[in-house]
Amino acid sequence: MTSHPGTLYGLGVGPGDPELLTLKAVRLLQEADVIAYPAPMEGASMARSIAAPHIPEGRTEIAIRMPMVEARFPAQDVYDKAAAEIAAHLDDGRSVAVLCEGDPFFYGSFMYLFGRLASDHRTVVVPGVSALTATAAAAGAPLAARNDVLTVLPGPLEEEALVERLARAEAVAIIKVGRHLAKVKRALAATGLDHGAHYISHASMAQQRVVALGDLHEDTAPYFSMILAHRRGDAWS
Amino acid sequence: MTSHPGTLYGLGVGPGDPELLTLKAVRLLQEADVIAYPAPMEGASMARSIAAPHIPEGRTEIAIRMPMVEARFPAQDVYDKAAAEIAAHLDDGRSVAVLCEGDPFFYGSFMYLFGRLASDHRTVVVPGVSALTATAAAAGAPLAARNDVLTVLPGPLEEEALVERLARAEAVAIIKVGRHLAKVKRALAATGLDHGAHYISHASMAQQRVVALGDLHEDTAPYFSMILAHRRGDAWS
Repeated sequence: MTSHPGTLYGLGVGPGDPELLTLKAVRLLQEADVIAYPAPMEGASMARSIAAPHIPEGRTEIAIRMPMVEARFPAQDVYDKAAAEIAAHLDDGRSVAVLCEGDPFFYGSFMYLFGRLASDHRTVVVPGVSALTATAAAAGAPLAARNDVLTVLPGPLEEEALVERLARAEAVAIIKVGRHLAKVKRALAATGLDHGAHYISHASMAQQRVVALGDLHEDTAPYFSMILAHRRGDAWS
Repeated sequence: MTSHPGTLYGLGVGPGDPELLTLKAVRLLQEADVIAYPAPMEGASMARSIAAPHIPEGRTEIAIRMPMVEARFPAQDVYDKAAAEIAAHLDDGRSVAVLCEGDPFFYGSFMYLFGRLASDHRTVVVPGVSALTATAAAAGAPLAARNDVLTVLPGPLEEEALVERLARAEAVAIIKVGRHLAKVKRALAATGLDHGAHYISHASMAQQRVVALGDLHEDTAPYFSMILAHRRGDAWS
């Protein structure tokens, strides 16, 4: 007996506040046969924690556990194994929702599963509120407006590359700041973008922190942190 | 008798699919005393249409009506008048939710009210799913991944500026395409970014359309349209 194959959902669960889930994500959490999510080697998954109030009891769950080594991309064999496990559910006719912090296609690890599964399985991506806009909301300053050019720069880039990009930038969001904070601060200062810049960690979460960059004295930051800057300085705030 | 002043909410209602509202937006729509939204001179407001299933009957509403002239920024006197009307409600202790297509701080017109009201009134911005990530979901291709630099470029920029920015770009989203489509296509071709690029209009809405840029023969596009391109071409899809 062959069954109708199941659908793979990439489900954006938003930046951290469980109230920033979309109605669509909530519905699909209730409908999906299997729920999968990235998780550290031990302990709780952030994506699952965000969605937890809406995950029915007793649902089949797959924790995709991998070493969380910053600035190194995850072991491909972890994704090979997870994709095989998910594919088996899909082939048996079960739908699988993969929970993604923020938005699945905005620097998300969902791409690793998408690349392995989307060509052979019906795949639907449900966009979520990204950390990018949640961070601007937390800072109380527009990310970009009118005909601004907006540049999103990952903190792990080399200092020279950061400076080269920042020199021409108008509105800027620097993501994945983490242990690159000191380098990022130097690059912003070198390009005149430090004035009016804000550092934001854990946007929309209980531990949210917003600091003017000039008042930030640490040299490292948590993973969930971002810096927003604008050529106009803090004319917004 | 003085009353406690009301809170101003900038409420992202997402890209168009009413199911992409957040739980928080839905709650605040039910709680707000007054609901305001941008609207054309005649006819329905897009932001209100998206939120309509959640707006209680008989709620006080403010339609901020303005001429929708593309590529010209709206008359400031319209916002002066709307801000005064909203401020009067806030001063009388009523909360006001301003509905914003997508996200309030991602190229949103909310900034015009924010600039006039936030310094004197308690203001909370509720992020929403932006057209940026909804468009990537529609195209079925990651917007940006790993350590990509992502550049968001408004279509109204001069062709020379577009070419200059695109020449150095990796992941690209071109917004506000509209009547600038022919110019944008030329700039993408001149910088080798046309291969694998996608054109997407009305992402997440019933009339959503996704076309490979090479198969698009029009020279103008609707307001709600975007082009996604990547230096890697369509290696994603």
